Amino acid sequence: MKLPKKVTIKEVGPRDGLQNEKQLILTEDKVNWINSLSETGLSYIEVSSFVHPKWIPQLADAADVLRKIKRNQGITYAALVPNIKGLDRALEMNADEVSVFMSASEGHNLSNINKTIDETYPVLAEVVREAKMAGKTVRGYVSTVIACPYDGLVEPHQVKKVADRLFAMGVDELSLGETIGVGVPTQVERLLEELLREFPSSQLAMHFHDTRGTALANIVKSLEMGITTFDSALGGLGGCPYAKGASGNVATEDLIYMLHEMGIETGIDLDAALKSAQLIERTLGKELKSRQMEIFRAEGKERIS
Amino acid sequence: MKLPKKVTIKEVGPRDGLQNEKQLILTEDKVNWINSLSETGLSYIEVSSFVHPKWIPQLADAADVLRKIKRNQGITYAALVPNIKGLDRALEMNADEVSVFMSASEGHNLSNINKTIDETYPVLAEVVREAKMAGKTVRGYVSTVIACPYDGLVEPHQVKKVADRLFAMGVDELSLGETIGVGVPTQVERLLEELLREFPSSQLAMHFHDTRGTALANIVKSLEMGITTFDSALGGLGGCPYAKGASGNVATEDLIYMLHEMGIETGIDLDAALKSAQLIERTLGKELKSRQMEIFRAEGKERIS
Repeated sequence: MKLPKKVTIKEVGPRDGLQNEKQLILTEDKVNWINSLSETGLSYIEVSSFVHPKWIPQLADAADVLRKIKRNQGITYAALVPNIKGLDRALEMNADEVSVFMSASEGHNLSNINKTIDETYPVLAEVVREAKMAGKTVRGYVSTVIACPYDGLVEPHQVKKVADRLFAMGVDELSLGETIGVGVPTQVERLLEELLREFPSSQLAMHFHDTRGTALANIVKSLEMGITTFDSALGGLGGCPYAKGASGNVATEDLIYMLHEMGIETGIDLDAALKSAQLIERTLGKELKSRQMEIFRAEGKERIS
Repeated sequence: MKLPKKVTIKEVGPRDGLQNEKQLILTEDKVNWINSLSETGLSYIEVSSFVHPKWIPQLADAADVLRKIKRNQGITYAALVPNIKGLDRALEMNADEVSVFMSASEGHNLSNINKTIDETYPVLAEVVREAKMAGKTVRGYVSTVIACPYDGLVEPHQVKKVADRLFAMGVDELSLGETIGVGVPTQVERLLEELLREFPSSQLAMHFHDTRGTALANIVKSLEMGITTFDSALGGLGGCPYAKGASGNVATEDLIYMLHEMGIETGIDLDAALKSAQLIERTLGKELKSRQMEIFRAEGKERIS
């Protein structure tokens, strides 16, 4: 098995995780959680999103969160921005990196951004240009890279077309989102074969939702194909907007466990991650669904003293 | 990705699943469940165990279960037997196949069977010989093939030694059990590399517990190495005796989903499997933990009318 020695895990829980939680979380609780994430060894935390509060009320306090967190050296604190207005707010709060987003499928793009794919490009191009001029790196999220809740299966060449445009704009890294968690390793292989013909693996990240339990299998296949950056959310936060109650992002702690057991370094301390998961679990007042948290509870350990 | 076209799933829920449930299930409910399993397209169901009722009270009705189930042609109804006494009872009830079991590690074998590995061989050899003379096929379970809750990591050559002895006795198929669910694909690869040097893939089955969420990833690696038989339990039944409350066997329905999406035939109807899972879920009076059942509930569907 050809595997990388080291993998970067990008924690998207505070943004992709919390945005699916209905109960409004206090800014202070978010800040405490992000501060505890900063103590785990993570090198990248996506802390919030500057979309209009009308769309995601949970993240309306993005500016406050960015202002109040304690920033550790060596950690990138990133924020999602939908447009120039969002970018301006993110720059004002000095986010270390900004992320733009769109979908590989028309149906999801229309539903999520209210624009066609072609209408989206100029908006993102402007954001990327301004962000780069402000000295920021830019991440591009491409959603629905394997399947779309509206259009069905998405062909790799569709993803490649969008990826081409985003890289041409100057995006530094693309995060390929398997948004609805239906994908299996054969599909991941087919997608990556197509993309890696044109783009270096160092500029691609995989972002799996674990709705059908296939995320870790998909990650192993991605590793074998040379991918070394993965998004995840502590506690498997995120839910699935297309099947309420179902699982969300692949859980950071389950990913850490598997990678470490496979001899792959992450730089993250699993115990510290579990402590941080326990913190947000208490804030949310519900049991998180990851396997590591299940075992943690089963063992009856008290890690927060 | 080199993959088989067809895979055999062996359902171990009625035995390996239920034996970990504390609440005693009525024989009638077990029979109803097994009858519903027979309508899913499964070709193999392990229905119970003839161990002494003192050890597993839940399966004390093994003979009754075997007597009362409706047997479909083309389905193998198997039973676990620990010794000659158990075998006699299984033969009396005309189990189609019997399974013997032991561990690859001394610690687990001692704890589970109360014998050393060397003391176990003659007991199993007698059972295998008698079973073959009665015209039955025999399955051999080897537990703790990657790690042992008492001895830690288990080396592939230890597993090979036990496998050698069991095949020499005349066992038809070995099921390699990753009993505590700690394994990752690199370990599976290393184990199978060692075993496939000596034994044909057609005589090996993999039996993964999903305690840490790695079972599907381990199955994909096994598939790539040529394994075409997998054990699973509907609803992920089975728990983990070493971490109460944690997950059990890999869930049959999650495995079916993944295999079908990968273009691999199982002969099983996923909807029928979910109906059957709903049946045992109602009997147990608790939510099953598989992802497919999670989605099923999230979608609010009523499959049993």
